[in-house]
Amino acid sequence: MGDPLKLGLAGLGTVGVSVLKRLGMMENELAMKAGRATRVDAITARSRNKDRGVDLSSYRWFDDPVALAKDADIDVFVELIGGDSGPAEEAVRAAIIAGKHVVTANKALLAKHGNELARLAEENNVSINFEAAVAGGIPVIKTIREGLSSNQITRVYGILNGTCNYILTRMEDDGLTFAECLEDAQRLGYAEADPTFDVEGNDTAHKLAILTSLAFGTEIEADSIFLEGITTITKADIAAADELGYRIKLLGVSQKTDTGIEQRVHPTMVPKTSEIAQISGVTNAVAIDGDAVGSITLAGPGAGGDATASAVVADIIDIARGLFINPLGRPVGELQPYVRAKMRAHEGGYYIRLTVNDRPGAFASIAQRMAERDISLESIVQRKGRSHREEARSSASRQEKPQDVVLLTYETTEEAVRKALQAIKKDGHIVASPQMIRIERL
Amino acid sequence: MGDPLKLGLAGLGTVGVSVLKRLGMMENELAMKAGRATRVDAITARSRNKDRGVDLSSYRWFDDPVALAKDADIDVFVELIGGDSGPAEEAVRAAIIAGKHVVTANKALLAKHGNELARLAEENNVSINFEAAVAGGIPVIKTIREGLSSNQITRVYGILNGTCNYILTRMEDDGLTFAECLEDAQRLGYAEADPTFDVEGNDTAHKLAILTSLAFGTEIEADSIFLEGITTITKADIAAADELGYRIKLLGVSQKTDTGIEQRVHPTMVPKTSEIAQISGVTNAVAIDGDAVGSITLAGPGAGGDATASAVVADIIDIARGLFINPLGRPVGELQPYVRAKMRAHEGGYYIRLTVNDRPGAFASIAQRMAERDISLESIVQRKGRSHREEARSSASRQEKPQDVVLLTYETTEEAVRKALQAIKKDGHIVASPQMIRIERL
Repeated sequence: MGDPLKLGLAGLGTVGVSVLKRLGMMENELAMKAGRATRVDAITARSRNKDRGVDLSSYRWFDDPVALAKDADIDVFVELIGGDSGPAEEAVRAAIIAGKHVVTANKALLAKHGNELARLAEENNVSINFEAAVAGGIPVIKTIREGLSSNQITRVYGILNGTCNYILTRMEDDGLTFAECLEDAQRLGYAEADPTFDVEGNDTAHKLAILTSLAFGTEIEADSIFLEGITTITKADIAAADELGYRIKLLGVSQKTDTGIEQRVHPTMVPKTSEIAQISGVTNAVAIDGDAVGSITLAGPGAGGDATASAVVADIIDIARGLFINPLGRPVGELQPYVRAKMRAHEGGYYIRLTVNDRPGAFASIAQRMAERDISLESIVQRKGRSHREEARSSASRQEKPQDVVLLTYETTEEAVRKALQAIKKDGHIVASPQMIRIERL
Repeated sequence: MGDPLKLGLAGLGTVGVSVLKRLGMMENELAMKAGRATRVDAITARSRNKDRGVDLSSYRWFDDPVALAKDADIDVFVELIGGDSGPAEEAVRAAIIAGKHVVTANKALLAKHGNELARLAEENNVSINFEAAVAGGIPVIKTIREGLSSNQITRVYGILNGTCNYILTRMEDDGLTFAECLEDAQRLGYAEADPTFDVEGNDTAHKLAILTSLAFGTEIEADSIFLEGITTITKADIAAADELGYRIKLLGVSQKTDTGIEQRVHPTMVPKTSEIAQISGVTNAVAIDGDAVGSITLAGPGAGGDATASAVVADIIDIARGLFINPLGRPVGELQPYVRAKMRAHEGGYYIRLTVNDRPGAFASIAQRMAERDISLESIVQRKGRSHREEARSSASRQEKPQDVVLLTYETTEEAVRKALQAIKKDGHIVASPQMIRIERL
């Protein structure tokens, strides 16, 4: 047995407490696997006296995470504070400079400062392990960085936010509106009081930025990700998708193209028969396309104290086992600058829902605008935009009421679709903003 | 940059050639990731002059794999010969004793000699990496050994044989018989001329034995696995499963129980909505239940030259990167002896199909036999065992013709079901051997 590995643990929220408990419960087994004991030596959190249902008396207490990070007696600094700056950033930086390994679940910190922290870690010969930062308990970082290190990866995509997937699943299963499902998610603790960060896609973007760097060997670049949230998805979209053989998922997609790398987060139509379409509720999934392996899909819990602790503790055990690797899979100096592919050049199929004044000539005019941009239509479906009861009431005046028209295009470009929709708007046949949802080739 | 890592490659079949090509194609990128070059130094195969579409002139040639394994100039022996004894075993053993790391895709060898080879590797301070031995390109070994090292695993199961999954998928999709699908699989190269090893479950069992050891920290024990193949699955079973909301998959399942560990390979009814049910064709999938993570599912290609090479080359890169770990995740001396749970004690639901002489009292008698063993029935369905045309022809004599009766039981024990079926057979109401398929709780 080697010397015990001594941890400094910063942050005692759900994940921190779960990490503490797991390290205690699995003490002997983990020591056996690693050939050395692993024990928590010191802790810090915002409040010392809060009842967390766990005895903290055997650990040294620090009020200041930076002081803990630098403490001479610890070998590993476990950062579970959160936030892309402030105490988390200062403490991680201090730990690395003091020669401590770092384990963190902090996606926001890595999305913002990952390149620099990885460089600092390399200079100081320490690890930064961050399996828990992306997709919770699913070991996707290890899979890309090690398990598929032999591949040229062409695309990585996934369902990376459980809140959004819960909402979209409920909308589909129970025919509810976005607002109704969000309320349920908040009641069940799946969504924050201010859900913006989740439902607008920012959380997914942070995770995607990390995956992109690992998959393509580029610097982490989280600021230029194309972002569309799920707040505009309606019951009509969910129902139309269902009829057409699709489901709507919030995907983060990173893809190599001729002009650079597309990083995009948006509601996406995926075929019902695809593996990613089966992922329901708060579950996460990540798929990786590689030139050797073909396509691999990993699915599992993306959040929650225990699932996140699973990844944090595995990262700690890797350090105890002496497994060291460049944080971003290669030396930071070898990372390529991130070259952004223009979203307008994106190629794919599109779902378009238009609310149309049902006048003679409206359809022909819309079809003409698509043709002008060389957009071929796979299908055009007129849908009832209103309930059956409204339908019955207004059947006399049906001709004047707006109708939903759903178009599915064959492969085209984002630019063509945007220009065609601008022209259609100008023509005055549609009464609301067009809905446009990208279809992912799976 | 460190010294180059020099490989001796034994076996130049589809996988071996794919490994050679990949190492050449990715040379610079792999060197960057590992901080040192990796190059093939020497090779051996059965025939030197066979045209493999790849130039072998720059490698030293060996006729004898054992001589290559011991060669002073190589650092890693890559074993792609196959077979659970003979040259593969001798060469791997020689390589380890000579202080070479080993990378192998050989599940049969590990299932038979894994404990001993792992011990030998530990004594000689070398790695044995074998990601490609289970589920081809899916990094499931790394996931269990490292990514989920923080978990008490309670069950691991999966679709581990592409041939069987292809056959079952075709039977379901196209309404074909087992024999018809097997023939197609052979024509497409998915099945061997002698398919026994695949369709009787032996190949799945080898892979399961390896997963069991990693998941539960027990010695590898491949000889006492409960084994049932897919040759008895009929169109009637596939159709009945479909009607009841299930699919039939050949699963390997390893599960902790009160009396030991169940290792079993058998056709299994899985709910259509489960992730494992979505795995079609030659794709493999592995699911792992852990106390922290909940449940993780990995899916991807389980065979094929490039997908297997993906895992082999990743294993080589791990060695180049200096990532060393006990082959079975903990020192061999710490592995527990494998304690086999009795199959008769297995608990679960059962699908039972009986071909019954449709005489008054037959149903009552069958129900009575189940009740005597405390087996509760979830459903009893009488099915047409014959085609509609036969049905029409013989409608006059319907009462005398045998009928298929399908029973679904609630959770019970294997022992109860076997005893009930024995009694039913004795009663003389059934005209063929009963079909019994286990339902897996997912």
